[in-house]
Amino acid sequence: MTIEAMSAARQAELCESREGRLAVRLALAATVEPADRTMTPLLRGLDPFTAWAMVRSDADGKFTRAAARVQALRLEDVVARTQELGARIVIPGDEEWPCGVDDLESPPYCLWVVGTGSLRQACERSVSMVGARAATPYGTQVAGEMAYGLAGRGFTIVSGAAHGIDTASHRGALAAGGRTVAAMACGIDIAYPVANTGLLQQIERSGLIVTELPPGSAPQKQRFLSRNRLIAAMTPGTVVVEAGLRSGSRSTATAASRLSRLLAAVPGPVTSPASAGPHQLIRDCGATLVTDVDDCAELFGAIGADLGAVKRAETTVTDRLDEPDKRLLDAMPVVRGTTVAKLAVSAGLTGREVTRGLAALHAAGFVERIESGWRRAQEGPA
Amino acid sequence: MTIEAMSAARQAELCESREGRLAVRLALAATVEPADRTMTPLLRGLDPFTAWAMVRSDADGKFTRAAARVQALRLEDVVARTQELGARIVIPGDEEWPCGVDDLESPPYCLWVVGTGSLRQACERSVSMVGARAATPYGTQVAGEMAYGLAGRGFTIVSGAAHGIDTASHRGALAAGGRTVAAMACGIDIAYPVANTGLLQQIERSGLIVTELPPGSAPQKQRFLSRNRLIAAMTPGTVVVEAGLRSGSRSTATAASRLSRLLAAVPGPVTSPASAGPHQLIRDCGATLVTDVDDCAELFGAIGADLGAVKRAETTVTDRLDEPDKRLLDAMPVVRGTTVAKLAVSAGLTGREVTRGLAALHAAGFVERIESGWRRAQEGPA
Repeated sequence: MTIEAMSAARQAELCESREGRLAVRLALAATVEPADRTMTPLLRGLDPFTAWAMVRSDADGKFTRAAARVQALRLEDVVARTQELGARIVIPGDEEWPCGVDDLESPPYCLWVVGTGSLRQACERSVSMVGARAATPYGTQVAGEMAYGLAGRGFTIVSGAAHGIDTASHRGALAAGGRTVAAMACGIDIAYPVANTGLLQQIERSGLIVTELPPGSAPQKQRFLSRNRLIAAMTPGTVVVEAGLRSGSRSTATAASRLSRLLAAVPGPVTSPASAGPHQLIRDCGATLVTDVDDCAELFGAIGADLGAVKRAETTVTDRLDEPDKRLLDAMPVVRGTTVAKLAVSAGLTGREVTRGLAALHAAGFVERIESGWRRAQEGPA
Repeated sequence: MTIEAMSAARQAELCESREGRLAVRLALAATVEPADRTMTPLLRGLDPFTAWAMVRSDADGKFTRAAARVQALRLEDVVARTQELGARIVIPGDEEWPCGVDDLESPPYCLWVVGTGSLRQACERSVSMVGARAATPYGTQVAGEMAYGLAGRGFTIVSGAAHGIDTASHRGALAAGGRTVAAMACGIDIAYPVANTGLLQQIERSGLIVTELPPGSAPQKQRFLSRNRLIAAMTPGTVVVEAGLRSGSRSTATAASRLSRLLAAVPGPVTSPASAGPHQLIRDCGATLVTDVDDCAELFGAIGADLGAVKRAETTVTDRLDEPDKRLLDAMPVVRGTTVAKLAVSAGLTGREVTRGLAALHAAGFVERIESGWRRAQEGPA
């Protein structure tokens, strides 16, 4: 029985039940392509029941694009296939729904999830790490280490399971025994890219795989773009590790900015095209430059709790000297000895500053006295 | 005859003449250490005649540090030595005085200059390039290419003649047949570092060497810091190429910021300690990230005249397709053929969009028709 044929009372009852809400959301997910330029704007902000009624009836011919899919739709097959895969379907109101995606202009109708733990909880303290498929050894090393360190500090690493930076990020998190989430641009039954089949199985065992596309959906190009907006929305912040000027990571970064999420990027050699994307994001798009786990944890973590150590260089043995003594030491000859009077001229100090300084520097082992006068100690202080 | 012993009328006359102003400025330069923490604050903003009277008389014992130097001072020797070196002494009011240094809290009293052309003119369209002595091959390559490119566009490259980035920057400018200025932390008669004697001779022939220290002054540590403030002040902007967290370039950068000069930094591998300085400047100090000559020219050049090309990736052959056709192509199988009806479902398009799209894609060589239906062309469009 279709929704339209029901009595108003039954319809209202259905709206109240999870079962009813799930049914229309599944129908929409299976027929309306995410980010479809024709249909999505028309459905924006509508409750799913109204949206589905519009798509299904296509009264004014605006949803013709969905017609073939509406006709082919077998909801019970979608549900059965999901169960067969050991996956679950999550909709708004479910404990596991990741609240962040509600900030999207067109949030997903439902999410297919497979794996361990609650998706919402996993996303609460999380970072998405994205970047080029054609990553360099530098990029994969940095991504892997960053993910490892962040996972070790309790951050879930969210990425897209693609080759390159995505793979390095997932692997880094797994190596740390941490949590990782793979957001897919295809149905949950498709391992894409095929070479990452093993990685995806590993992620499923200890982390989560998520998608807004029904089982059987192929990884078509524009689905990567709509998937990227999910990655940006699910997490409080995104790090772009390596990316060309034209890249999918760029779309994730743009989505993160639009959603007022934190956006960070890892610099690299200016001679490497793979770092051109991060550099542009830092220069023109307000992305924060991050160089290591400390930087990221401070940026994405709880204020105060994850403060990074202030980066300082090591201090040297002369740092402890006061200003006149530093000047005196600078003016000290290395080979021949010199006099107090000459030191006063070359260092520009008073005679008293020189004599006092010589005593202090001598005691500390910086200078020595030879027949011709004072000079630098041939063996400095320990 | 000392200034104090002169009649008031003669003193006033002296103040008016370049000769008189030069004399007191030389005396101050020879006795007051630049950026001396005790004396410099007391002399700030005073006209040089008053300043010199205070230093010389040392009435309240605040200028005792200068006493030994005042006593050793032989102005005529300084002038003679300068002439002997083929150098000139430049003071405010001279055509060659680089106006930028007047923005300093404690501007130099005079500048020793040797080389070709006007220092002021050279600084008008200039960039200072500074960085680590212990530069990496990456850093010296980038500095050299950037200096080469900027010099080729008419920018004077100002640097400090040190090993590493400074040397690479000067050399880059010279290789382009451009102008370069070396600002020294010692007297103009001292080639420091010694290994750069040849480079300094080259710079003198086609560019300029400048210092605020009298001949014979040794390159003492704190003089590098006071020299760095000169570099920052003389130019409209500073680029830091490589620098450790603790480095002299940091002081140049700080001076540039304080003087409201433009500050830029070149990123590098996060795994390289030599890039830690630039990264910190970009992240915490508002330095602009620059990756190449275009970036620098746009930042430091005349507004409009030096606009860099917008960095874009190459477009691909499918960029020209409209959205439904892109989706159709994405949904197209590679091996087996498929039908219009199936394409409508997988691409989420209307039947009409599919048939129209197939015609267009076929004409452009993207798809082909085989017995079982439509598939991607085995050889794509040219």
